[in-house]
Amino acid sequence: MQPTGLFITLEGVEGVGKSTQIKHVADWFRKQGREVLTTREPGGSRAGEAIRQILLRHNDVAISAETELLLIFAARAQHLIEMIRPALAAGQVVVCDRFTDASYAYQGAGRGMAVEQIAQLEQWVQEDLRPDLTLLLDAPVELGLERAGRRSSADRFEAETLAFFQAVREAYLDIARGEPERVVVIDASDDEMTVRRNIRAVLEHEYA
Amino acid sequence: MQPTGLFITLEGVEGVGKSTQIKHVADWFRKQGREVLTTREPGGSRAGEAIRQILLRHNDVAISAETELLLIFAARAQHLIEMIRPALAAGQVVVCDRFTDASYAYQGAGRGMAVEQIAQLEQWVQEDLRPDLTLLLDAPVELGLERAGRRSSADRFEAETLAFFQAVREAYLDIARGEPERVVVIDASDDEMTVRRNIRAVLEHEYA
Repeated sequence: MQPTGLFITLEGVEGVGKSTQIKHVADWFRKQGREVLTTREPGGSRAGEAIRQILLRHNDVAISAETELLLIFAARAQHLIEMIRPALAAGQVVVCDRFTDASYAYQGAGRGMAVEQIAQLEQWVQEDLRPDLTLLLDAPVELGLERAGRRSSADRFEAETLAFFQAVREAYLDIARGEPERVVVIDASDDEMTVRRNIRAVLEHEYA
Repeated sequence: MQPTGLFITLEGVEGVGKSTQIKHVADWFRKQGREVLTTREPGGSRAGEAIRQILLRHNDVAISAETELLLIFAARAQHLIEMIRPALAAGQVVVCDRFTDASYAYQGAGRGMAVEQIAQLEQWVQEDLRPDLTLLLDAPVELGLERAGRRSSADRFEAETLAFFQAVREAYLDIARGEPERVVVIDASDDEMTVRRNIRAVLEHEYA
């Protein structure tokens, strides 16, 4: 019998270590003998990556909060139809760096777009598809921004204020409180190996 | 007193002569002493033109009907906030090559997206803003496509089938029948000068 596809998302503000930990998550599933697709939002598909470029070009392209939200769901629609749904249908594990929780956190809490509008877009593009497990990497905003700042020059999102990222972090924690069966909060202020071990414990508990 | 802004849109399938006639419309208003902004959709703003590029690249970027609809409204949201609303607020005449009627015709009738979804997006990005006058340049689909084909190599929309454009044309005519006070149908199978004269007669009747 074909294994059931699994949809795992990683969430968190800048600098919490998502891109490092996503590799460990993928490795863990591969060691279990699963086929794994790692991907990211905004982006994923070719159209999605082109949209991502528009979203990150803060220096020369003006984008309103509403435009941003619609662009992100346009990228998500393509990502779902072209990559995520086919992989899940083939029984693969999809590990995605950010998904719709990020829209509630960034475009909703961060930029003030209405929750109802985000929920309507989510319903349109996802229908009943939701992540099976979301790992929320949580750390004080200052720590994450310090790490992100060390890494590269700021893109349009990283150039936001501390208050913006505080609102984003709080929104993420609210989602985790509301859906404890789906969202597991991981303390990302620990060192990389500790975070990795804590994530592995979650995966072993759920999927070993 | 500042003149009231006017929002004029031109609609129609490929090859009906919109880009030629839009110049005549703009000239007519300029001769009336009005400031005119001519623009187009999808596009207009810098983000919008970048989105337009994604939409037209049919050779190398896959785009679902849903993605296309969301991209078009993302571009429209930015177009409105950055260009159309400020111009109208300043009392200018905005003459736009395609607007939301095109979403109902192309993405709705052409690609099968739900009218309710288009109407919800229209409500979000436009609120109560609608064109004051829409000139629908109508001609048999074969004639328009022949003219468009003569002009350049087909983009993603022009590569669609005849049945697609028939559905688009019918949807445009349905809109015109439903909103005769806003939408004036112009026979675009006439030669350019006749079309121009007929459009001028409409403008003189409405705004001279």
